[in-house]
Amino acid sequence: MSQRTVEDEALLDAARECVLEVGVRRTTVTDVARRAGVSRMTLYRRFPDVTTMIQALMTREFSAIVTQVDREAERLPTGRERLVAGAIDGADRLARNPLFLRIVDVDPELLLPYVTTRLGQFQLAVLASLELQLLEGVRDGSIEATDPAIVARSIELSLRGFVLQTLAEGAEAAREPELAELRRMLDRYLTP
Amino acid sequence: MSQRTVEDEALLDAARECVLEVGVRRTTVTDVARRAGVSRMTLYRRFPDVTTMIQALMTREFSAIVTQVDREAERLPTGRERLVAGAIDGADRLARNPLFLRIVDVDPELLLPYVTTRLGQFQLAVLASLELQLLEGVRDGSIEATDPAIVARSIELSLRGFVLQTLAEGAEAAREPELAELRRMLDRYLTP
Repeated sequence: MSQRTVEDEALLDAARECVLEVGVRRTTVTDVARRAGVSRMTLYRRFPDVTTMIQALMTREFSAIVTQVDREAERLPTGRERLVAGAIDGADRLARNPLFLRIVDVDPELLLPYVTTRLGQFQLAVLASLELQLLEGVRDGSIEATDPAIVARSIELSLRGFVLQTLAEGAEAAREPELAELRRMLDRYLTP
Repeated sequence: MSQRTVEDEALLDAARECVLEVGVRRTTVTDVARRAGVSRMTLYRRFPDVTTMIQALMTREFSAIVTQVDREAERLPTGRERLVAGAIDGADRLARNPLFLRIVDVDPELLLPYVTTRLGQFQLAVLASLELQLLEGVRDGSIEATDPAIVARSIELSLRGFVLQTLAEGAEAAREPELAELRRMLDRYLTP
């Protein structure tokens, strides 16, 4: 989909409510259409199937996190500070995102391919963003100059564990110290 | 189980072959007993059910990795070098372990609880071992003195992503550079 219309946004809002209520697997076109107050045909004209709709929903939800995180990190003076703050804040926001939590809780097997098999669109976007930020940090002298692709990959890989264990027993209490420690790890890793 | 006998080892060898052949979910007591050349009753006397047997098998397989890794790292001069080499070598060996690969390939949903919900026995053993190594490194001045529990947790969390993506497209080609980069990350993280 090139550009989302107001109607698309309303359909995705309805899909979001369905997923929060029953999870991804049990969300149907009929439910979403009813909740959005449109016919199933109207919905099918925008999204050929549930999977496409859910993917559009996830893209919207997770892209919003990246945008928000980048905006908040903007005020920091060096490339390294912006990258580290953004990466940690992003991992934290993703781990607390209601839609993400619902999937981890109800349909965790849907996340498996992105952990064991291949990168999703969101991960590719994160990697691209990290690479740009690494180059900025190298340019202002706050980040050691090495291959940005492999460093971006290490950062993404090393934060997955934290993001996925969000529903683990004791994870809520451990969140702040763990985030502070991962921030310290990334900061030391990138410092020239 | 307190102490494994020669008979237990033979049963676990048979269970290992079954898992390599058909995966965990499709391995039955009947198959393992047949392969080991014992009656089902004999097997039940040692392991009350398939789950217990598979757990004993995993504990044996993964503990062997830790032992081997620790022995190889022993020759290194400082605590930090031993810890970092051991952690990276351990992650690499686990990611290439035939039993682990089989589970990631055939029964990945069995790994999910250890990623999203709770720590397994193996992870707890790894954390305990990392904490001891951290204290050694602090003692010889090669590791920055901080809370060893939270640092051990960060290391374990940050290596999960690498271990789990072992079957991903391109993972084989990326293995060496990724391991080298994670090693560099941990080394910089721990250096005083």
